[in-house]
Amino acid sequence: MKNQIKIFCPATVANVSCGFDALGFALEAVGDVMTFTKTETKAIRITKINVDSLPKETDKNCASAVAKIMLEDAKANFGVDIEIHKGYKSGSGLGSSASSSAGAAFAINYFLNNYFTEQQCLKYAMYGEQVACGSPIADNVSACLLGGFVLIRSYEPLDVRQLPVPNDLMVSVIHPQIEIKTQDARDILPKDIPITNAITQWANVGGLISGLYENDYDLIGKSLVDVVAEPYRKTLIPNFDTVKEHALNAGALGVGISGSGPSIFALSKGLTTAKAVAEAMTNVYKTTDIEYKTYVSKINLKGVHLID
Amino acid sequence: MKNQIKIFCPATVANVSCGFDALGFALEAVGDVMTFTKTETKAIRITKINVDSLPKETDKNCASAVAKIMLEDAKANFGVDIEIHKGYKSGSGLGSSASSSAGAAFAINYFLNNYFTEQQCLKYAMYGEQVACGSPIADNVSACLLGGFVLIRSYEPLDVRQLPVPNDLMVSVIHPQIEIKTQDARDILPKDIPITNAITQWANVGGLISGLYENDYDLIGKSLVDVVAEPYRKTLIPNFDTVKEHALNAGALGVGISGSGPSIFALSKGLTTAKAVAEAMTNVYKTTDIEYKTYVSKINLKGVHLID
Repeated sequence: MKNQIKIFCPATVANVSCGFDALGFALEAVGDVMTFTKTETKAIRITKINVDSLPKETDKNCASAVAKIMLEDAKANFGVDIEIHKGYKSGSGLGSSASSSAGAAFAINYFLNNYFTEQQCLKYAMYGEQVACGSPIADNVSACLLGGFVLIRSYEPLDVRQLPVPNDLMVSVIHPQIEIKTQDARDILPKDIPITNAITQWANVGGLISGLYENDYDLIGKSLVDVVAEPYRKTLIPNFDTVKEHALNAGALGVGISGSGPSIFALSKGLTTAKAVAEAMTNVYKTTDIEYKTYVSKINLKGVHLID
Repeated sequence: MKNQIKIFCPATVANVSCGFDALGFALEAVGDVMTFTKTETKAIRITKINVDSLPKETDKNCASAVAKIMLEDAKANFGVDIEIHKGYKSGSGLGSSASSSAGAAFAINYFLNNYFTEQQCLKYAMYGEQVACGSPIADNVSACLLGGFVLIRSYEPLDVRQLPVPNDLMVSVIHPQIEIKTQDARDILPKDIPITNAITQWANVGGLISGLYENDYDLIGKSLVDVVAEPYRKTLIPNFDTVKEHALNAGALGVGISGSGPSIFALSKGLTTAKAVAEAMTNVYKTTDIEYKTYVSKINLKGVHLID
């Protein structure tokens, strides 16, 4: 076992249109790189972080907070130095805090020689989400830690399932560089929804999951419908309808809001289409003065993993 | 092609706990037998029916109503005589009107040499539901006509998908012989539901469908949760909670209300358990003065089919 590891922690897309608070997947081309070094003191330190906006205090940074509680619970006699190289901005809707939290859970469990089960690591990563966002949400951290496409079937008890990923399923993401606070994105949603909309939503969750198992790209696309969150949250994202329309015209199977936004994701069959979709989305924002970043990616099947 | 056919039209379980208005499956051991005879006149007649409570008038009986509109739309120059042998009571929550409607759609299309597509037949069967219950619901007729486990992904446009059925999946049903009007069962439900309950529901729909694909009986059982309709509708079914508890204790994977009730269904792994579950459910009603019927069945994979 090494005393220093470098890991890749993928960005993640949660909700996936119909699967609000229940579905998520990891990206291959976008994520953070974190370096963890085992130390002889019991201190947990953020020694380097490439953005100014994130906290460095052990209890406030979600990565160090996760590391601290795991090392305490395992009664470990060592500490860690943590270097965080964010590969994408926080507040993007791509699970930035989840990447840090899941990365810390993975790295600490590595140094602990897998003292904790996968399920326990998930819960520690969820604790990181609690530290970062005030709520121990599971969708981004599950997708990040386990990789692939995940279903959060239940929180009590926690039951996370991995779903199959068709080979040619590709993701295009555009991140308009505006800030949406998760709390605002939550507050804009009604607490009660019409039962008819709920039925539409779970029928589409059923269709999406069936489509993943059947490699049925057409069914996947048809099922990428969100009548619950998107109608409200899209009002926080400039040009959402136009981006969606252009992405669909360019061949996307479906388009939705990534997490609570502002990033917009599209699923496509094959790299060529995914690139054309990304270009179509880009062309919409090119006409505005909003800055943006665009990504094209496969779905990451590994989750957090060692690199180098 | 024969001028007279006899068909089996399976009873069906709609909703399946978490899948309210979206999921259904067909039974092998319970259903109606219908005999259709092609006639030279253009008349559509119910010539025999083994229960007094159902209408015999062409426009009021859902089977003859379906036959009439299909023959008109196909500009057929023949009529049919229809004999209906109900194998279970109507108002059971086991899709009695769906059996008659789907049976008629199947038989008339047989005589029309498959003039209509499967999708069109489904729509005609849905018209039968409209005649019988006032609403063109698709879940029971889809399960009855196609067989197996079905997902109604969308109504507009109609998109019905067949899901895999694990080999050892068995059904126990108890039908307390009380009457619940579909309209009452509808009226008791709130029009709006908490978004948190909706999330629980679609997470479980995801789990159930994943369980069907994975042959994961444990996951199927865990996913048979209904926080939307059951809490309200169970108040219309005497001893529901006790029946559920005893069925689960006897080894059932999960228990729920069949359609809008009053029948209660349980899914089990294997025939031995399904029989023990049926007995446990029976024992509850034995202590009451409510009459009941109990069934143990495989899931019917054929749907409506020719017999003899």
